Amino acid sequence: MILAPGEFEKNAKTAHGVIRYSNDETVAVVDPACAGHMVREVVPYLDCDAPIVASVAEGLRYEPNSLLIGTAPKGGKLPAEWRAEILAAIDAGLGIVSGLHDMLSDDPEFVSAARERGVKLWDVRKPPDVPLFSGAAYEVEAPVLLAVGSDCAVGKMTVMLELACAARDAGSHAEFVPTGQTGIMIAGWGIAVDRVISDFATGASEQLVLEAAGRNPEYILVEGQGAINHPAYAPVTLALLFGCAPDALLLVADVKHAQMDPYGTPILSYRELIRIHEELCATVKPAAVAGIALNTYGLSAHEAQAEILRAREETALPVDDVVRNGPDELWNAIAPKLVKRHPHSAKVVA
Amino acid sequence: MILAPGEFEKNAKTAHGVIRYSNDETVAVVDPACAGHMVREVVPYLDCDAPIVASVAEGLRYEPNSLLIGTAPKGGKLPAEWRAEILAAIDAGLGIVSGLHDMLSDDPEFVSAARERGVKLWDVRKPPDVPLFSGAAYEVEAPVLLAVGSDCAVGKMTVMLELACAARDAGSHAEFVPTGQTGIMIAGWGIAVDRVISDFATGASEQLVLEAAGRNPEYILVEGQGAINHPAYAPVTLALLFGCAPDALLLVADVKHAQMDPYGTPILSYRELIRIHEELCATVKPAAVAGIALNTYGLSAHEAQAEILRAREETALPVDDVVRNGPDELWNAIAPKLVKRHPHSAKVVA
Repeated sequence: MILAPGEFEKNAKTAHGVIRYSNDETVAVVDPACAGHMVREVVPYLDCDAPIVASVAEGLRYEPNSLLIGTAPKGGKLPAEWRAEILAAIDAGLGIVSGLHDMLSDDPEFVSAARERGVKLWDVRKPPDVPLFSGAAYEVEAPVLLAVGSDCAVGKMTVMLELACAARDAGSHAEFVPTGQTGIMIAGWGIAVDRVISDFATGASEQLVLEAAGRNPEYILVEGQGAINHPAYAPVTLALLFGCAPDALLLVADVKHAQMDPYGTPILSYRELIRIHEELCATVKPAAVAGIALNTYGLSAHEAQAEILRAREETALPVDDVVRNGPDELWNAIAPKLVKRHPHSAKVVA
Repeated sequence: MILAPGEFEKNAKTAHGVIRYSNDETVAVVDPACAGHMVREVVPYLDCDAPIVASVAEGLRYEPNSLLIGTAPKGGKLPAEWRAEILAAIDAGLGIVSGLHDMLSDDPEFVSAARERGVKLWDVRKPPDVPLFSGAAYEVEAPVLLAVGSDCAVGKMTVMLELACAARDAGSHAEFVPTGQTGIMIAGWGIAVDRVISDFATGASEQLVLEAAGRNPEYILVEGQGAINHPAYAPVTLALLFGCAPDALLLVADVKHAQMDPYGTPILSYRELIRIHEELCATVKPAAVAGIALNTYGLSAHEAQAEILRAREETALPVDDVVRNGPDELWNAIAPKLVKRHPHSAKVVA
């Protein structure tokens, strides 16, 4: 059961991602704002018949075994009115999965209630202790592809999950690397890099790549975060750009975004985005943008195709919408470009 | 009394900064590697006759009232062998001032010893809770000058402290904003931005500027951190670049650095550094590099002057070494350039 009061339709990318990509079944969504509908009626691209209900109590009839907090409000703070719903779920014996900044496992009331009922509180954002960046990521054998975005919430995680599927369909092992709460909930591992102490954010990014490399994939596909010119979240973007030591970048853009909410910062053009990312990478370890994944959700087929063609013309790169058109074509176009590159210095610390 | 075992001469920028700029007197330095000398004999640019001793026990005769941990090892972890020295200081009734990543106030042994003796443990790196970046920094009236570096440990803090003195001598109120442990120890306030959770690092930077603005200065001079192409610490640099909303940048470079230890990443040229910082700022709120402060420590007067002239020729900017030549000339050259600029959007959230 997924909790997203008032937010499920428009502001619940965690909920949508888990419904679409997790191996766990969603049996109900809690959102009074659209209670009475099925998931697919409210969010048409989700192939899911689960009912939307007004409260946790109402959703219990669908026999959930855990409650997942399915939205990430700005700053990740737990809205006070959700507390009673979470306690109701604990009382009913459900485990709780949370990606919020406020850790449920640091909250005496939740901890005490969970202990009494013997249920687990999983704060997916709680980061492990990680070492500083060492340079060990430079030695990873599989090429690393990192998603970089024109803005937050443009679909970077979705694109990388779709490309990982396309790689699998093509007979390759591409390992998806989760770097945020939704990706962690879907993949069952990862680190929420935005929650790591700043000095260690590059080290956390490196550890993620090293962990993925330990599974001997042919490709490593890293979910990106934020945007390089986002006034609030750019430091996390840069941590991944340097810490993951990518060999290539995939630019992800939502064609409907013109500026960054709520700051009003203009979205850069594709060419500007390519240039600033490639210039930054060139100062440490060169990496080029291998392709562009556009999010054209909500546009007509004709409008979407026009945007894809415009981006191809502006950049001379492979461009597609992997949700609308499937990921195979874009994957086949970029996979041959994913070759190992090296930093300016071969010196490795670890 | 400052603790810097084995590190005082070469790797103790916290110790050097506090000795040079703090209003508190240093009565002894603990470093067995150069015990028996005076501070000025080991570090000639420090105008300080305090003795260097081999242990805390030996230093007690100089009647310190606190022990300051004066070096910042990579990662900030407390070396095990220093533990006994800190406990000896607590036993002798000294307060402890620490800028390490490992918080003394989270360590049961230190906490218990300090409570027993009634002494204070001050972890200057322990960050306060801060809100997310809001855009309120765009409304600050005083121009904000941010130091950006070619590398870590090039002297960004020193330059900004010297420029704040020059402003004062010129009859202006320039507020120094500490962003790292040494600056905090010197100024008595501030936030160690490298210790803030990544998502909140821009918010912490903004809060620092807002706090400085509350004192109604004519100028705000922000100590920088790291370098924009540092493989490990660049995210902190970018947090300051966006979160402080600077109106101008001061580039600080140590002419002796050719690459970044221990990664081997090449140091960028002045022109490359100017371009990449200005390009990043241009995506959110434009800011230009107003001048360059060179660290020529260890060079002959002739060599230093040649480096200064070379930088002036390469960049057509005011360039000086403010430690070697005093800060007045550089301050007088850049102060007229410090005028308020605005972000691309006037929209402010807070």
